[in-house]
Amino acid sequence: MAIATTQKAAVKTGEGDTAKVEVKSIEVPQPAPDQILVKINYSGLCASDKSLLHDEWAFSGVSMQPQTKGIAGHEGAGVVVAVGSDVRDLWKEGDRAGIKWIASVCRKCEFCTNGVDECHCPKQLNSGFSIAGTFQEYALTDGRYATRLPDGVKDEEAGPIMCGGVTAYVACKRSAVKPGQWIVLPGAGGGLGHLAVQYAKAMGMRVIAVDGGDAKRDLCLKLGAEKFIDFTTTKDIPAEVTKITTYGAHGVVVTAATKAGYEIAPSFLRPGGTMVCVGLPKDGSIIAGAPPIVMCLRKLNVVGSVVGTLKDVEEALDFTARGLVRPILTHGGLEDINRLCEEMNAGKLAGRAVIKIAA
Amino acid sequence: MAIATTQKAAVKTGEGDTAKVEVKSIEVPQPAPDQILVKINYSGLCASDKSLLHDEWAFSGVSMQPQTKGIAGHEGAGVVVAVGSDVRDLWKEGDRAGIKWIASVCRKCEFCTNGVDECHCPKQLNSGFSIAGTFQEYALTDGRYATRLPDGVKDEEAGPIMCGGVTAYVACKRSAVKPGQWIVLPGAGGGLGHLAVQYAKAMGMRVIAVDGGDAKRDLCLKLGAEKFIDFTTTKDIPAEVTKITTYGAHGVVVTAATKAGYEIAPSFLRPGGTMVCVGLPKDGSIIAGAPPIVMCLRKLNVVGSVVGTLKDVEEALDFTARGLVRPILTHGGLEDINRLCEEMNAGKLAGRAVIKIAA
Amino acid sequence: MAIATTQKAAVKTGEGDTAKVEVKSIEVPQPAPDQILVKINYSGLCASDKSLLHDEWAFSGVSMQPQTKGIAGHEGAGVVVAVGSDVRDLWKEGDRAGIKWIASVCRKCEFCTNGVDECHCPKQLNSGFSIAGTFQEYALTDGRYATRLPDGVKDEEAGPIMCGGVTAYVACKRSAVKPGQWIVLPGAGGGLGHLAVQYAKAMGMRVIAVDGGDAKRDLCLKLGAEKFIDFTTTKDIPAEVTKITTYGAHGVVVTAATKAGYEIAPSFLRPGGTMVCVGLPKDGSIIAGAPPIVMCLRKLNVVGSVVGTLKDVEEALDFTARGLVRPILTHGGLEDINRLCEEMNAGKLAGRAVIKIAA
Amino acid sequence: MAIATTQKAAVKTGEGDTAKVEVKSIEVPQPAPDQILVKINYSGLCASDKSLLHDEWAFSGVSMQPQTKGIAGHEGAGVVVAVGSDVRDLWKEGDRAGIKWIASVCRKCEFCTNGVDECHCPKQLNSGFSIAGTFQEYALTDGRYATRLPDGVKDEEAGPIMCGGVTAYVACKRSAVKPGQWIVLPGAGGGLGHLAVQYAKAMGMRVIAVDGGDAKRDLCLKLGAEKFIDFTTTKDIPAEVTKITTYGAHGVVVTAATKAGYEIAPSFLRPGGTMVCVGLPKDGSIIAGAPPIVMCLRKLNVVGSVVGTLKDVEEALDFTARGLVRPILTHGGLEDINRLCEEMNAGKLAGRAVIKIAA
Repeated sequence: MAIATTQKAAVKTGEGDTAKVEVKSIEVPQPAPDQILVKINYSGLCASDKSLLHDEWAFSGVSMQPQTKGIAGHEGAGVVVAVGSDVRDLWKEGDRAGIKWIASVCRKCEFCTNGVDECHCPKQLNSGFSIAGTFQEYALTDGRYATRLPDGVKDEEAGPIMCGGVTAYVACKRSAVKPGQWIVLPGAGGGLGHLAVQYAKAMGMRVIAVDGGDAKRDLCLKLGAEKFIDFTTTKDIPAEVTKITTYGAHGVVVTAATKAGYEIAPSFLRPGGTMVCVGLPKDGSIIAGAPPIVMCLRKLNVVGSVVGTLKDVEEALDFTARGLVRPILTHGGLEDINRLCEEMNAGKLAGRAVIKIAA
Repeated sequence: MAIATTQKAAVKTGEGDTAKVEVKSIEVPQPAPDQILVKINYSGLCASDKSLLHDEWAFSGVSMQPQTKGIAGHEGAGVVVAVGSDVRDLWKEGDRAGIKWIASVCRKCEFCTNGVDECHCPKQLNSGFSIAGTFQEYALTDGRYATRLPDGVKDEEAGPIMCGGVTAYVACKRSAVKPGQWIVLPGAGGGLGHLAVQYAKAMGMRVIAVDGGDAKRDLCLKLGAEKFIDFTTTKDIPAEVTKITTYGAHGVVVTAATKAGYEIAPSFLRPGGTMVCVGLPKDGSIIAGAPPIVMCLRKLNVVGSVVGTLKDVEEALDFTARGLVRPILTHGGLEDINRLCEEMNAGKLAGRAVIKIAA
Repeated sequence: MAIATTQKAAVKTGEGDTAKVEVKSIEVPQPAPDQILVKINYSGLCASDKSLLHDEWAFSGVSMQPQTKGIAGHEGAGVVVAVGSDVRDLWKEGDRAGIKWIASVCRKCEFCTNGVDECHCPKQLNSGFSIAGTFQEYALTDGRYATRLPDGVKDEEAGPIMCGGVTAYVACKRSAVKPGQWIVLPGAGGGLGHLAVQYAKAMGMRVIAVDGGDAKRDLCLKLGAEKFIDFTTTKDIPAEVTKITTYGAHGVVVTAATKAGYEIAPSFLRPGGTMVCVGLPKDGSIIAGAPPIVMCLRKLNVVGSVVGTLKDVEEALDFTARGLVRPILTHGGLEDINRLCEEMNAGKLAGRAVIKIAA
Repeated sequence: MAIATTQKAAVKTGEGDTAKVEVKSIEVPQPAPDQILVKINYSGLCASDKSLLHDEWAFSGVSMQPQTKGIAGHEGAGVVVAVGSDVRDLWKEGDRAGIKWIASVCRKCEFCTNGVDECHCPKQLNSGFSIAGTFQEYALTDGRYATRLPDGVKDEEAGPIMCGGVTAYVACKRSAVKPGQWIVLPGAGGGLGHLAVQYAKAMGMRVIAVDGGDAKRDLCLKLGAEKFIDFTTTKDIPAEVTKITTYGAHGVVVTAATKAGYEIAPSFLRPGGTMVCVGLPKDGSIIAGAPPIVMCLRKLNVVGSVVGTLKDVEEALDFTARGLVRPILTHGGLEDINRLCEEMNAGKLAGRAVIKIAA
């Protein structure tokens, strides 16, 4: 397959709130022996990309590293155009491949070898954070950790599943809510939320969607929520949750990256319930949890969740291949990333943004 | 059995920090059909008794209720002296019985019936909180929820197991630390801590005890801790934990009721580790948990724990009957409760305080 | 409410294969203090009723006991007409109540108190086995263990859920098959099978239904099966399961009470998969399991399942109340029980048989 | 390090019951890029080696394959003497390494990648079964799946832990018996049994050892068993187990490869208990399990177990390094293998046999 030697990429310039991406022409990289080169057809635009591009987590030392060359993006889907010498048993040109937040793991540490979870690998590389991401036409990734895309999932859908989808899916698993039990999903109509509604529904959970306005109500109910609580018209949301569930919900997933979102979530739970933390705020003073007297007397569980394992991603894709989970997409090109980040900040973005990368 | 008509009890007087107990003569109550009357031989003195007597949790609406008549205490062990008409199939005079924090549950709600956990019963009664406690010579309790004391456990030991023991035991279970894995126990030489060391050891966990001074070091190592970290001489405790465990410990139990204790605990954990909240501070501003970015990227678990079920208590007693867990006791009488509370506040109390009640 | 003093009941006569029921007039019993008297509107007819009436399990000492007075039946639904003095806080006349296989538990043993499972209570009473069952117009049952029937579930549906429904539901839970994973249901179009298909589907599992003929195929696919294997036309069923699932299914539920059914089931499983035993054959030589070399090298799990707890039944009913699980019914009266047992033996019965009892 | 070009090996000759090993001189192999060459200091002699050398499992198609060149052995411990080009980041000459039953896994399949268990890898290679084993002075193994031996574990102990130790350890884990609960270990004084006693004890379980004679009694009690049942003097072993445990034990591990062993084991269990299958009989007619009516009414669990994952082996070694589990050894050389197999068949072998291989 003929590969161009130069390509377009969206490259970070500036710092902090005023940082932007500029579309530049850069060199196309060559795969190392264990890498594949993927021609990116579509890449999702995740809230984490926006946070990294705007240095929102610098307070805790989490910033894009020089090896990224300023290229964010970690929800890539495309076609393999070159294969490193060590991974030719795994990939051939023309295969469809997905690139994830976790781009590579060491395959040797306690967390990688087995029994635990390779997402904890201390030597992992992350797309758009510690290696160049998917906002470029040709991206490199570890051939042993890239994801094979199944038939029945289009590239524009596969991209957002690579991070947004698997994040929603694994958060639902982490909630430990069983079929027939209640889960509350604040922000259910949003980018992560609308995926969580669909995964929770497909897993047999009963969904209480919380969001604002009739459009969100219609969307959430259409996607499978059983109840909708409109925060613009409901005074006491925990009371409403209790009314529906008698003792409180069995789980809640906090996708919002706000103080208010983290503070109210424990009050949705019944004794023994589980709060799953997903949203990553730029306010470093927020503590996810509850006062000890609440934690103890109600025996709550507060758990963190971030993306998922290689196998989790395959499972998350499988739900899409079966038609049970479909991301709602707002389309754009590399030149639209700045605008889409602004819309994300303003809470105006419908569903997940997906960027058409290579022609 | 001849039962006196009046008895001595330690009754709360005053409010807040200056509240005390006074030893008074009061009437001996009669059992309702589903109750037994227990002549209390020994009662443990729990930090929660002190907190309730001093109104420490009034900030969150948790205060001793009028039905207690000012009588705290929830670690009672003694002998049954009268049996209500409905529970004569369960108890007879002369049986040894234990009284717990949870004195009674409704046996009808979702949490009681099964599959969940009766500790969540919304109609539960609590000794020394919503019914009169064990700081009296003759205490009433629900015959269907009292605990049969096994041979091989003396009353003075059984008392502290009723709450302190089961709390330590269930906290170890909630940590999900498996045999051969590491658990950190800050305050390991204290009233709850020294019990947790023994339970954790008996459950096959490797214990890192954290406490101050050589006496505590000797005690913790004797009780089964594998490592001791002296906070009076160790600058960076998390670093020391990491040195011992490579990636951090698998679990930590926070028995301390302090802000510092809650803040440092997550830093002892490896990715995927679990922090168990047990200590109940009087500072209402403390949030048990960690910043979302830490919770998520390290996939931590923060869970609350409080006492245990009827069956947990039986299991906890069983470890004592087998000689694996023995409370270290500081003895006193009803007239010593005020002094022992002061020593508790000053952190000067060795092990668990146990009060000799009836002659 | 006026209660008749005599009533109709279907009473066992004869022994073994030639045993029958005769509709007789007997006295209406009075509730003991802890009992309620239920006017049975409908009762399901379970394969276990047939097995007990025909002494099929006598080989292992399991036979209807004299206390039943020959009255089988354990899937009763009706209305409370009298309430014992001790359970008036729980029931009032006119309440809708369900009677289950487990009619009563001791509420005192290790299995009852909590943490384990009251279905193991060694002192349990079983409807139609150790106390008189529901094939009578007025049946007594333990007021503390009867099941409240929710709105949205009709009596004729509630009956079969009391045993058949909860059995199918709990078997699906015991399979440990997770949402998105494969479960094989041999006999999927049968009395238990068609309920299992619906529960499995509602729990997010992917169902491979195995049964014979186009009518069964249509039924299974309509109820939510994703694949159907027709055993009348498929030579190598395990090979077909492997073709669908790559490595084999994650679980299988054996509802058939036959040697062939138990022998083939392990071959449907992937390594680590689980076989749930439900069907109770009259052939005492059958061993549920697999050769050790298969059990070990493939790390299989073989687990037994029988009905469910009080809470399981509530959950099972809840799925019906939500419209997700509906039993397919063949109706009859007390005088039809003998004929329906014959049809059951011949495998000709569609769905679950339900008997209209009281007018 | 100077490596000889020829070496001694114990090579299978003959077939079936009369098969033997002969000590021959063969070539020393060279490592492929992903392999290491280990100079074997000690190798355990497992009952599986004997079974494979005597074609005991040929009935189910399990026989030593030609690639083994007739060399059995899968409990090797020694020192790395040559390192393939692809695994030099993992190993260097002089490192201590262990060789296991599972010599290599594909690292690509669903079972290897994560979330499940690489022991199920359909492409795994097994030492002494599908590749040459450890009964030779220099053995090759996959550098990515060999086990690093910790300080504090001698080679002669590490060998038997590679298979016997991890098998006992994982069987205890599979039993799901919790700290303070009862596990029955038939054959507790035997090669696998005496390791299981120690692991179970170290995991907090209460051990009922079953074996014959006073020497076994003394050994089992010394290793940590709480009770000993002598099958040579006890008529009704299940009754004795019930006497000790009230309702039956929570778990049983069947290490015996006999029909009698498999038949009696379920009768040791309480409702809800778990039987772990480990022993692999040469009698192909044995079904591990219980009659369905027993499986169901008692809700038993029957599970298979075989060796363990890479991480399980590390954990199993760790218990030895901590001094909690020590194999009892019968020493021999390559020329003693035939005799030791005979002693094994006669049940006369004390503990685990370990073969000194290289000088």
